[in-house]
Amino acid sequence: MSYSGYWGKCLEFLKKNQIEVGSLVKVRTDSTYSGILMPRYEHSDDRHIVLKLKNGYNIGLEIEKISQIEIESQPSIEKESTIQPQTDPKLPKILLISTGGTIASRIDYRTGGVTPALTAAELNASVPELSKIANIDTEVLFSEYSENLLPEHWIKIAEKLDLYSRSEYKGIIVAHGTDTMHYTSAALSFSLAGFPKPVALVGSQRSSDRPSSDAAQNLISATKFLVKTDTSGFFVVMHNSASDDEVACHWGTRVRKNHTSKRNAFQTVGGTPAFIVKKEDIEKNPSFNSPQRAYLPKINFNDRVLLIKYYPGLDPAVVGNAMSLGYRAIIFEGTGLGHVGKVMYESIEHAKRKGLFVGMASQCIDGTVRMTVYDSGRDLLNLGVIPLGNMIPEIALVKAMWALGNTKDVNEMEKIMKENVAFEFSD
Amino acid sequence: MSYSGYWGKCLEFLKKNQIEVGSLVKVRTDSTYSGILMPRYEHSDDRHIVLKLKNGYNIGLEIEKISQIEIESQPSIEKESTIQPQTDPKLPKILLISTGGTIASRIDYRTGGVTPALTAAELNASVPELSKIANIDTEVLFSEYSENLLPEHWIKIAEKLDLYSRSEYKGIIVAHGTDTMHYTSAALSFSLAGFPKPVALVGSQRSSDRPSSDAAQNLISATKFLVKTDTSGFFVVMHNSASDDEVACHWGTRVRKNHTSKRNAFQTVGGTPAFIVKKEDIEKNPSFNSPQRAYLPKINFNDRVLLIKYYPGLDPAVVGNAMSLGYRAIIFEGTGLGHVGKVMYESIEHAKRKGLFVGMASQCIDGTVRMTVYDSGRDLLNLGVIPLGNMIPEIALVKAMWALGNTKDVNEMEKIMKENVAFEFSD
Repeated sequence: MSYSGYWGKCLEFLKKNQIEVGSLVKVRTDSTYSGILMPRYEHSDDRHIVLKLKNGYNIGLEIEKISQIEIESQPSIEKESTIQPQTDPKLPKILLISTGGTIASRIDYRTGGVTPALTAAELNASVPELSKIANIDTEVLFSEYSENLLPEHWIKIAEKLDLYSRSEYKGIIVAHGTDTMHYTSAALSFSLAGFPKPVALVGSQRSSDRPSSDAAQNLISATKFLVKTDTSGFFVVMHNSASDDEVACHWGTRVRKNHTSKRNAFQTVGGTPAFIVKKEDIEKNPSFNSPQRAYLPKINFNDRVLLIKYYPGLDPAVVGNAMSLGYRAIIFEGTGLGHVGKVMYESIEHAKRKGLFVGMASQCIDGTVRMTVYDSGRDLLNLGVIPLGNMIPEIALVKAMWALGNTKDVNEMEKIMKENVAFEFSD
Repeated sequence: MSYSGYWGKCLEFLKKNQIEVGSLVKVRTDSTYSGILMPRYEHSDDRHIVLKLKNGYNIGLEIEKISQIEIESQPSIEKESTIQPQTDPKLPKILLISTGGTIASRIDYRTGGVTPALTAAELNASVPELSKIANIDTEVLFSEYSENLLPEHWIKIAEKLDLYSRSEYKGIIVAHGTDTMHYTSAALSFSLAGFPKPVALVGSQRSSDRPSSDAAQNLISATKFLVKTDTSGFFVVMHNSASDDEVACHWGTRVRKNHTSKRNAFQTVGGTPAFIVKKEDIEKNPSFNSPQRAYLPKINFNDRVLLIKYYPGLDPAVVGNAMSLGYRAIIFEGTGLGHVGKVMYESIEHAKRKGLFVGMASQCIDGTVRMTVYDSGRDLLNLGVIPLGNMIPEIALVKAMWALGNTKDVNEMEKIMKENVAFEFSD
């Protein structure tokens, strides 16, 4: 019997009623609830059990208030590694590349923590619905939480995708940790601009073996999206709301992780997602157009770009120090319409004299940098600071690393930064 | 006649019809619009005129499509400096302290730019409605755009407010630039925790002499809020929507400027505003409680706190470099639940050995840092990194500057950072 994470009074209660984690139960308290008994983890008390309801929400129920509890069905036991997804030659082929992250991980119920474990094959096998939509080939590229990914990993993913650019696959899923998924989606969008197939970066905010996981729904929706829509380019495919009803396909250069834990943490900034996968159909955003660019991969990044958020009291010497570390470009997250305090001017002037690229995004995140409105902005323009429109700061950073990887000439870099390469400017 | 910003065909059109900027006009195109002719600025074309409609929105109308235009009233000419607001001894007294910013500025129509100009007295005089709500005394503390404010300015504002903590004023308005208004509201919230009066930081996203300005509505609402509610502490009082209908009073440590240009750019993160000033009444958020803390001002800040956003490719040497600049504390904007890549561990260990405070907020901005879920988080906890809950990163930065200004002991600083001093933790 598994009572993962339950202890004290809860454990006693579950043992007495012979109910284990994963069972579908009906519980009567003030109202009647039907749902799957979930494992508990981290700082759990011993007075509540947690059910995952059919709408996708979890609910905590105080055991003292439970007047009746009965089992509707026992937990389904799936030996994942032994399941072989069926193939149907009539279905399109999709490639699933795993890079790690929560979507490919399990909870360690002893420690309450999450560790990467599932391979791409296991992930595919663990979601049997997938085999009805597509024939999925799987490949493990690496297995890292995305906070540990570096530009060198972006290059590995891009090179792998480039290999499959003219393949038989209808589309490609990249299973990826959510922490830096939008950095990777931007890196792929720039380095593989014009990629002829649709690529869905898919993650999950709750690990795959937890009943509340969003992994299955995100994978199923991404597969549907790749199979059923006629588009190309890079998308982040994640829950659009707290429930399982809608999954959003965010354009890869306009997306940001805006919440630490919500399943719908990813949002299209300054707009709505390119596509929404609903239960029955896929809705296209009328303002979204598939890219028409020729595919000319330029898989180069140079990490000598420093992102600096300006704030009151920031020491201007951080700019000089960045130069001593060999940084060749600075992206400011300025305030408001794209400002930094006068205290920074001298160090910016110095950086420009040394040939650095200095770009301006806004820490407001949403909205457009406009440096012609106030004296401060005009002063900065005069110093040679390049306004970066409504590019999201993190995306501007990745673009600058890509531009710097492809040219050493600061004027050429300015030109690249101003060009709308992959819909990174949306206004 | 004033045709500010209009040129070419538009100028010709306006001259022919003898309509000047500021006139209330009725225009027939596909539909009929009534509004005030606005000045144009920045990159304007010569084919559109702009009206401010009664709902607060601006609309651009193509002159080629205008079938009829007539003047409903001429621009009202107010010589602001000659207007003396009436005083009514029965009304409560409010103090208006001006620090600069757009709210106290005018457009320079020659350059299209905005320059600070209005004094607090002019500001008061320019909004005649104020004199019906309160008797307003005014004082200019300084006149700076808020991107130029430094911790030393926070100290000046705090010291000035402290002088009035036991005064006859019912409440105090601080007119402030919007770029760093949330940094200042946090600085005041910490250094003057328990302040016995309500203080409203008020700014505007459009300058006071533009017909689309939000300055008047924000000032009127702030005055109503200070006069009519029985609370204390620091609030950012700004438009709650694009129209003039609602003005939000955001709690000073839970607010952020989330858009570069919208009038409702300021948002309460992870919740709803403390109060909403509506046309007829003021709505209190039921989850907001006025602070009950004793007033013990501690007006000290130390700017040796570096805010670092972690991203793939960040050079760990920036931490060592920060130490060489004398930084004593680092606030990371980590990814997701509060992570940085393994590449940073050694430099963090080094910083901890040198006695620095290292705190973790999330670049997601919304949601809570939880460092017990993943290996990465637990590793960082073991290195001595302090999780900062759901504190907004910029607020955590200001709090760290304040904590460091009040203690040199890193353990004491950790204690201060974990304490909920001014509702900076809301979960």
